[in-house]
Amino acid sequence: MKTILTHNVSQVTPRHELITMHNFLAIDAGGTSSRAVLVDPSGECLGYGISGGGNPVSRGFEPALTCLLEASKKAMNGTAAPLAQVLIAMAGASLELPADLFQKSFIPLGLTGNVMIESDLLATFYSGTCHDDGVALIAGTGAVAARVASSQLAQVADGTGWLLGDKGSGFWLGREVARAVAAALDGRGRDTALTDLMLAELGIPLDPNDRTQGRLRAQQQLISKVYERPAIELSRFAPLVFMAKDDALCQDIIARAAEDLAQTLLAVMGNPDAEVAGQPIVFGGSVLTKGGTVAGAVVDKLAAARPEEKRSDEFSPILVEDGVVGAAVMVLKRGGIEVDEAVFARIQSSLDVLRGTK
Amino acid sequence: MKTILTHNVSQVTPRHELITMHNFLAIDAGGTSSRAVLVDPSGECLGYGISGGGNPVSRGFEPALTCLLEASKKAMNGTAAPLAQVLIAMAGASLELPADLFQKSFIPLGLTGNVMIESDLLATFYSGTCHDDGVALIAGTGAVAARVASSQLAQVADGTGWLLGDKGSGFWLGREVARAVAAALDGRGRDTALTDLMLAELGIPLDPNDRTQGRLRAQQQLISKVYERPAIELSRFAPLVFMAKDDALCQDIIARAAEDLAQTLLAVMGNPDAEVAGQPIVFGGSVLTKGGTVAGAVVDKLAAARPEEKRSDEFSPILVEDGVVGAAVMVLKRGGIEVDEAVFARIQSSLDVLRGTK
Repeated sequence: MKTILTHNVSQVTPRHELITMHNFLAIDAGGTSSRAVLVDPSGECLGYGISGGGNPVSRGFEPALTCLLEASKKAMNGTAAPLAQVLIAMAGASLELPADLFQKSFIPLGLTGNVMIESDLLATFYSGTCHDDGVALIAGTGAVAARVASSQLAQVADGTGWLLGDKGSGFWLGREVARAVAAALDGRGRDTALTDLMLAELGIPLDPNDRTQGRLRAQQQLISKVYERPAIELSRFAPLVFMAKDDALCQDIIARAAEDLAQTLLAVMGNPDAEVAGQPIVFGGSVLTKGGTVAGAVVDKLAAARPEEKRSDEFSPILVEDGVVGAAVMVLKRGGIEVDEAVFARIQSSLDVLRGTK
Repeated sequence: MKTILTHNVSQVTPRHELITMHNFLAIDAGGTSSRAVLVDPSGECLGYGISGGGNPVSRGFEPALTCLLEASKKAMNGTAAPLAQVLIAMAGASLELPADLFQKSFIPLGLTGNVMIESDLLATFYSGTCHDDGVALIAGTGAVAARVASSQLAQVADGTGWLLGDKGSGFWLGREVARAVAAALDGRGRDTALTDLMLAELGIPLDPNDRTQGRLRAQQQLISKVYERPAIELSRFAPLVFMAKDDALCQDIIARAAEDLAQTLLAVMGNPDAEVAGQPIVFGGSVLTKGGTVAGAVVDKLAAARPEEKRSDEFSPILVEDGVVGAAVMVLKRGGIEVDEAVFARIQSSLDVLRGTK
């Protein structure tokens, strides 16, 4: 597949021109924000831009395209040099969109080649490594794992959304918090420190003597407040589970999230003697990259599940913030440029400077 | 509270008139259908009518009122005799509505007294017993338990809706089915007979070689179909869990539903030496009243949880179809009429005749 893509690119523009004259544009198009980076063939990032959500399925095609172009123009910053290729990394059903829907909108920006749509899972994976084989586990609002083989998505587990799965995700954690509080308030569940935290967040006073229709009024108000907002917003309560770490129920929720996430990752790793042993493991998404509690617990579960394959200290995930480094890696790879450790390091360090993170 | 109500009624109409001349109207107002019954002071049901959903909060006030009046007129069937009282049994937030909102709409039907709004949980309880103390467990689309003391709702557990709880309900079962199938399709979960059943129900073909973006196409289609409908409609898959009873995963889902429902009921039963021992236990809702698998499992869990209180054969729930018998019981009780076993039996048998169920 990689060979075929390289061949296609070569048909459009001779290889030496790509390397000497053209830059590349890579976009990590998320549901709530999009990040674009202009990168030259050596891996030097020349410009960076951020805008709003760029997922055509969740936001609608035109609003998403507007955001993608806005981030792109910021990244181009008036650069006149021609663009060899544009790569847009997106989630889910957007991958089914034909890339030429986007083609003509990027021509005014200097595009001479074509637009490629790639999976955001691949972009996250390549944000952690320049190798073409390995696995990634991402737990943000949703949760999903992928095995990458020969630079393609070979296998995906979960990422089935908040109703069907996304087990161990931010939404899942927030819903578990809300459920635990609802159960504690009517005696079905254990008392928990989460009750005070969640009621305070919602501005609901807790008076144990104030009852209505056989319920605590606080529970009645909790029910009203939760159902007047979209379900997915329960993810806002996820951080509470890390604020009360001594609470037995919080420990239980975190342990179950880690168990579920490990299960999701194991589903794409295949059997212990498969080729994934020794390959990079990339972790992305705020649930795994912030705080470290969940990531550490997932590693412990992996080591316990596969003692024969690796020693526990060898499950060393690479943590990545988002998919923008990986989108840049991919646009070069898909453009026929070899991304070795030196090019990969150059992408990372030059982007860090542009983003002001280093 | 009962005394006060009797007193109020007596102020409007002398007691002997209530008994000798007036009839009563009782309405079980559900989310998707409403049932009205005209009952005389001896407990003889004189007319019965059905119409659409009568819950003002979920349907809007005017459409709900229209349905309540339609069912009422069918139950009255042209009867000219004055109505002493109207009682409407409703769920949740509708209980907070002032009863006089309904008052003037029932005057053209011959109402001389007032309209009372009561909890549908009480109506379900009284559909199984004429006693004023006991517990009820209801598992339909939602799930809730209540303890009734001195004819009032003393304690309620769960009934917190599909996002926060309703554990063991029809929605809960349907969602567990969908989750199990989603997990089986990407290797996170066990193989299950539910996969073929659910995919057949959705008209999705299962080709184990047809993959897209690292997923089985069947899973991608399952995801699309589930999210294009409102979340609550997952309850339609609940019956599948009873169609594959030999399946280990189905047995596990049913056992967890029973465990959760037992937990909900135990939350309102208080400690084992509380006064609920020996009092009636009423089960309502299709999950508990159809098939018997779940109800039996709940009884087993109750007996296991409280071995010191009762022998297992003494946890003998009374199964009820809906709340219409109980609404009739309540309208008489609230009207100051004693409902003994004979009156209760008369309500049941005369209503059975009107409904054509016997």
